[in-house]
Amino acid sequence: MTTLPFPRSEFEDRIARAQASMRGRELDALVLTAPSNFRYFTGLDSQFWESPARPWFLIVPADGGTIAVVPEIAEVAVKKCFVSSIRTWPSPRPEDEGVTLMTSVLGALPHRFGRIGFELGRESALRMPVVDFLRLRDLMGTTELVDGSPCIWELRNIKSTLEIEKIRQAARIVSHCFERVPTYANSGMTEAQISRALTIDILRSGAHTVPYVACASGEGGYDQIIARGTQRELRDGDVLIIDVGATVDGYFCDFDRNYAVGKVSDEALRVHDAVWHATQVGIETARAGTRVRDLWRAMMGGLEAAGMRGNNAGRLGHGLGLQVTEPPSNSAADDAVLEPGMVITIEPGMEYQEGKLIVHEENIAITEDGFADVLTIRAPREMWRLS
Amino acid sequence: MTTLPFPRSEFEDRIARAQASMRGRELDALVLTAPSNFRYFTGLDSQFWESPARPWFLIVPADGGTIAVVPEIAEVAVKKCFVSSIRTWPSPRPEDEGVTLMTSVLGALPHRFGRIGFELGRESALRMPVVDFLRLRDLMGTTELVDGSPCIWELRNIKSTLEIEKIRQAARIVSHCFERVPTYANSGMTEAQISRALTIDILRSGAHTVPYVACASGEGGYDQIIARGTQRELRDGDVLIIDVGATVDGYFCDFDRNYAVGKVSDEALRVHDAVWHATQVGIETARAGTRVRDLWRAMMGGLEAAGMRGNNAGRLGHGLGLQVTEPPSNSAADDAVLEPGMVITIEPGMEYQEGKLIVHEENIAITEDGFADVLTIRAPREMWRLS
Repeated sequence: MTTLPFPRSEFEDRIARAQASMRGRELDALVLTAPSNFRYFTGLDSQFWESPARPWFLIVPADGGTIAVVPEIAEVAVKKCFVSSIRTWPSPRPEDEGVTLMTSVLGALPHRFGRIGFELGRESALRMPVVDFLRLRDLMGTTELVDGSPCIWELRNIKSTLEIEKIRQAARIVSHCFERVPTYANSGMTEAQISRALTIDILRSGAHTVPYVACASGEGGYDQIIARGTQRELRDGDVLIIDVGATVDGYFCDFDRNYAVGKVSDEALRVHDAVWHATQVGIETARAGTRVRDLWRAMMGGLEAAGMRGNNAGRLGHGLGLQVTEPPSNSAADDAVLEPGMVITIEPGMEYQEGKLIVHEENIAITEDGFADVLTIRAPREMWRLS
Repeated sequence: MTTLPFPRSEFEDRIARAQASMRGRELDALVLTAPSNFRYFTGLDSQFWESPARPWFLIVPADGGTIAVVPEIAEVAVKKCFVSSIRTWPSPRPEDEGVTLMTSVLGALPHRFGRIGFELGRESALRMPVVDFLRLRDLMGTTELVDGSPCIWELRNIKSTLEIEKIRQAARIVSHCFERVPTYANSGMTEAQISRALTIDILRSGAHTVPYVACASGEGGYDQIIARGTQRELRDGDVLIIDVGATVDGYFCDFDRNYAVGKVSDEALRVHDAVWHATQVGIETARAGTRVRDLWRAMMGGLEAAGMRGNNAGRLGHGLGLQVTEPPSNSAADDAVLEPGMVITIEPGMEYQEGKLIVHEENIAITEDGFADVLTIRAPREMWRLS
């Protein structure tokens, strides 16, 4: 029985694109340790990554099929995925956790450039002990272990139609669940209670996992957007935000919704409208060929005019896919150009008084024809109300 | 409003123990980037870690309070936690993602030993780009950045009474949910459907998150235990396993249960009984003062006698806490000695025919008085039956 979420041709395309990019970058291989990268090339659906006891490696050579170098416990599950060959070591074995095996497997690859790319750079974390990486680097002698992250992001940033459909599916599920929140949430309930009920609804509605739920509330706005919901009870005049990253076959949606509890101040309503409007500007500005810093600039105009004091997020959106955030950053400093197949969040937010923040978020795909494909069901212009 | 899951004295104790250990190991500070370590010392409850765009740092100096060095977006949430001071940088800023700020904050600490511990070793992964770590190492000049993981595990491996109660709470919730599986699962349902229903029940019953669910099934046993449930439909004669890591305030339980679908072969029932028995031996052998390799040996006896062909997990259990797996490994190679306050899984498994594996698991705390404190509700000796 296959467990692959896509036809084999999808994985073949990814490997072919990786190999083309590697030749351009003079890499003999890419070595991947992160769950999202391992999954991208193999299709493996596992949460075993929660356990840091054993590293896993996937080698994408410049020519030929992929080689999984994994602990013995992973062999059977990986064999059912898209992979050409598998090498294993008995693990846990902290004194040699795959290091000598990796040295021998990498050493046997053709050495054309003498350079192998690892996940060393931007928005990457190597999922193995650093001391083991440094030891492997020593053992590899004259072969350079270099930063492969530009190659990885070049690939993963452009989604296929099938990938976009997974994100759309997650976004649709969560959109409908957000819409139902007013049917069960009300003043007096805690942030934690509402977050839990929403998470359950999302799972029941067909999402596979819900790895990210942030929730905050406060009179006329909230003071941060990254913590999980607390025991704070909602009160009349509050704005409640819930931000959800839920997955279908590993692909994330990532967006939030705001709710007005009873009667919210006119000032909060005005700011909410400005942020809703900035989202609209973002959706209409995000086209193939646009630089993300210009997208950022276009969205900032309305926020500044509405009295923005600051936005500590440092950006107004980001890439989205097998991770809840991926490059690029929708910010003044990022000069990435939007291309068809990119999926990004449009996420304006503003603090309008000390500790009073309002943030919106939608998910879109960049298309060939110039109009963004909105994957979420667009938030209503007026906040949903909780009684 | 406080969001701390423990009284402040709990965090003060942790920091005092860390500082005592650091003095013994000649470290001027510990620098922590992993979610579990950050949470251990601060109490922060956030899933923002899902986003790899921005690293976070917590510095535990050899004397004095902790210093959080975090992206601006984290400041307000971290301020509500247990931390003495906070430094921030505007992020994302890939060209300097906290590196120069960390250099200056670490540089201002007293230099007694000239050594700072990072998460570089066993069962650790540094949550920052390796190129940034290497740059920081260069910038720190003569100060050595060394492996702090032995210090971290020495602390975290011994749980306080309050920590054990969190794990017990998670284990109790999941135990009751496992018991209810036969009320809704039956032959013809898929692994994925049953996993989802169980996950929802666990959330509804009060667990905070369910980051790990593995599920497998097959006639008389399963061929692996790490993948998520598939579209495979249960059939008469199958053994179904579900393995769950669920949290309360970040603390994991991690255990599985087996279910017999209709009439299961006598051979599978015999092996199941042997594995159940090996669990019992493990629970009775795991006492303060026992070496884990002797615990492993005691459990292996019954499995070998029952016709064990192999066990690709490489161990029969592991530590448990803020991660679903922590050191030590219950294996022949680990010479750790069990101490009061350790929480471990007892997890015997055996393959008795090609592709037919049966695995059990319980969670226990090591006590002063010599008797293990079983945190799970012990699995029944006979498998629960699904019709």
